[in-house]
Amino acid sequence: MSSTTGTRGESVTPANPASDTVADHTTDVTALLERGRALSTPVLRAAVDRLAPPMDTVAAYHFGWIDAQGRPSDGDGGKAVRPALALLSAEAAGAAAEAGVPGAVAVELVHNFSLLHDDLMDGDEQRRHRDTVWKVHGPAQAILVGDALFALANEVLLELGTPEAGRAARRLTSATRKLIDGQAQDISYEHRERVTVEECLEMEGNKTGALLACACSIGAVLGGADDRTADVLEAYGHHLGLAFQAVDDLLGIWGDPESTGKQTWSDLRQRKKSLPVVAALAAGGPASERLGELLSADAKSSDFDSFSEEEFAARAALIEEAGGREWTAQEARRQHAVAIEVLHGVDMPETVRAQLTALADFVVVRKR
Amino acid sequence: MSSTTGTRGESVTPANPASDTVADHTTDVTALLERGRALSTPVLRAAVDRLAPPMDTVAAYHFGWIDAQGRPSDGDGGKAVRPALALLSAEAAGAAAEAGVPGAVAVELVHNFSLLHDDLMDGDEQRRHRDTVWKVHGPAQAILVGDALFALANEVLLELGTPEAGRAARRLTSATRKLIDGQAQDISYEHRERVTVEECLEMEGNKTGALLACACSIGAVLGGADDRTADVLEAYGHHLGLAFQAVDDLLGIWGDPESTGKQTWSDLRQRKKSLPVVAALAAGGPASERLGELLSADAKSSDFDSFSEEEFAARAALIEEAGGREWTAQEARRQHAVAIEVLHGVDMPETVRAQLTALADFVVVRKR
Repeated sequence: MSSTTGTRGESVTPANPASDTVADHTTDVTALLERGRALSTPVLRAAVDRLAPPMDTVAAYHFGWIDAQGRPSDGDGGKAVRPALALLSAEAAGAAAEAGVPGAVAVELVHNFSLLHDDLMDGDEQRRHRDTVWKVHGPAQAILVGDALFALANEVLLELGTPEAGRAARRLTSATRKLIDGQAQDISYEHRERVTVEECLEMEGNKTGALLACACSIGAVLGGADDRTADVLEAYGHHLGLAFQAVDDLLGIWGDPESTGKQTWSDLRQRKKSLPVVAALAAGGPASERLGELLSADAKSSDFDSFSEEEFAARAALIEEAGGREWTAQEARRQHAVAIEVLHGVDMPETVRAQLTALADFVVVRKR
Repeated sequence: MSSTTGTRGESVTPANPASDTVADHTTDVTALLERGRALSTPVLRAAVDRLAPPMDTVAAYHFGWIDAQGRPSDGDGGKAVRPALALLSAEAAGAAAEAGVPGAVAVELVHNFSLLHDDLMDGDEQRRHRDTVWKVHGPAQAILVGDALFALANEVLLELGTPEAGRAARRLTSATRKLIDGQAQDISYEHRERVTVEECLEMEGNKTGALLACACSIGAVLGGADDRTADVLEAYGHHLGLAFQAVDDLLGIWGDPESTGKQTWSDLRQRKKSLPVVAALAAGGPASERLGELLSADAKSSDFDSFSEEEFAARAALIEEAGGREWTAQEARRQHAVAIEVLHGVDMPETVRAQLTALADFVVVRKR
């Protein structure tokens, strides 16, 4: 599936196919993302600084804080949706946003551990417009620093030494297990010709939904919320994660390269069995059948790497004609609606509810 | 450094150069190792069974429970020193041995996570007389299943939901961070011509000492021990780990291939900068200098892979002549003595103290 990319301070306009039913909250969301970054990044950097050399340097490169030559860099650290959610999660439980910071940092560490390992497993050479860690520092450092970030995530929580931290660590561990399950499914699907829509949704729920769900509850847990409140926030995050991934899958095919920083038809070039593809293949009818024949032939083709723009455009058109694009856009809207509906299951300050709603809207209208 | 290998039910006779000063506790130790295995293996297998396919199968192969074709196998699961220590650790705190079982399982999961990743990073093709996971199932599965075992280790502890489990998880996380630091040092030393004895000891303390130290305290923490008791047991385990590794380093050069299951001069063939080598190089004198010249030339030699038995034997003889073998044997005895001395810092049932002493003796007299 497409990975999380983005830059700081982006403005948001709802020009995405999934965005018909949601309002525009540009200012709110930019401020929320900025707050998440401002509160969590110093703690994240301090945690990463604890790593022994050369792991601290390799990690700093991965986070975009230095370049491949070790010079300070103002790199692209991603959209920072998860830290923003973790802080709101603390506020949803009536605690200060700051109570969620260790959770925000732990979730970011796990997210980046998984990026380091997934990029190596998948052979991906680019991430956030830069060479990936295994390309620059070698496979061993990608494995080792990934491991170190994972360990650091647990350390950041458990060193708090509170019962709440233990509960937070337990939830993070469950989410990490699902994240790993999702990656295992993603790898196994690559070797299969057909993947069902249900399998794809299950994989995306594990690979993207679980950690976003954890981000949405971990701040509340650290802020003293009971399990029911945390479970509701987790459910919100799970559906938000599915909406997020559906939009990612749309952007992976039809995203504007200038916005996404990826090639045109990016997921098609990588033969990804993303939601629009599996939905189109499952739809039946002439376009679906023609698409199936083409993709089967592509899987065996030795010319695939030299395909022209037109050949990818033809596949994208068939996916759209078979209904895969519209189905995925609907899926994003459906999951977005469920996420917001679920939030009503728990009492929280109305300002926080509005902010969680605004973030959910942002996730489905974003263009990168 | 040499890795942990061994088989079940081994009998122990003190014919090792490090064994002059310790008594023989054959029967005791065999029973202790067997108890550790009997109590922890079913829980370990149940934990591994929770992994989603194909990770459960890959992990079962790694643990030796099935062969590469998936057929049940009565493989070599290692000496199981860590589980035995974790159970004794619980008893040292006045709890039942069973209280230590989740700790034993968590430590084994972390140990095996590190083996999966280290074998891939180091390019090691054999482990416990079998092809390593990355050789059989590919690098991606080695990374993924290693990650899954690490997550499972935290899960096994944190799902207990007690304050003691949170403290145990925190100690395990610290140990895992050190383990990763040690692997980072080991990798960086491979690229250097000279490593000091102090650097080698620090690396071995991280790579072997930290997790053995955790095994020796985690049962006590789960059994309700205070931090001081846990710290003393951890210190015992740290020194025991250094003794263990010193013996491993001796066996890696002078071990009997029939006992160790490795080639003759195993660590010399892999150009490992183990304790006997760095101690010999640091010693000075004609043999030390001649050894330094040979190893420098070996590092650049294109014929190294076709070296004869005699060429390795000549290097081993120089290490011995320069005093590297005797220094390492002394180091094993010294760390063994400190481990046992440290134990007097805490009250515990005398039977448990005797068993911890017997296990320490076993570690330095073992031949595999």
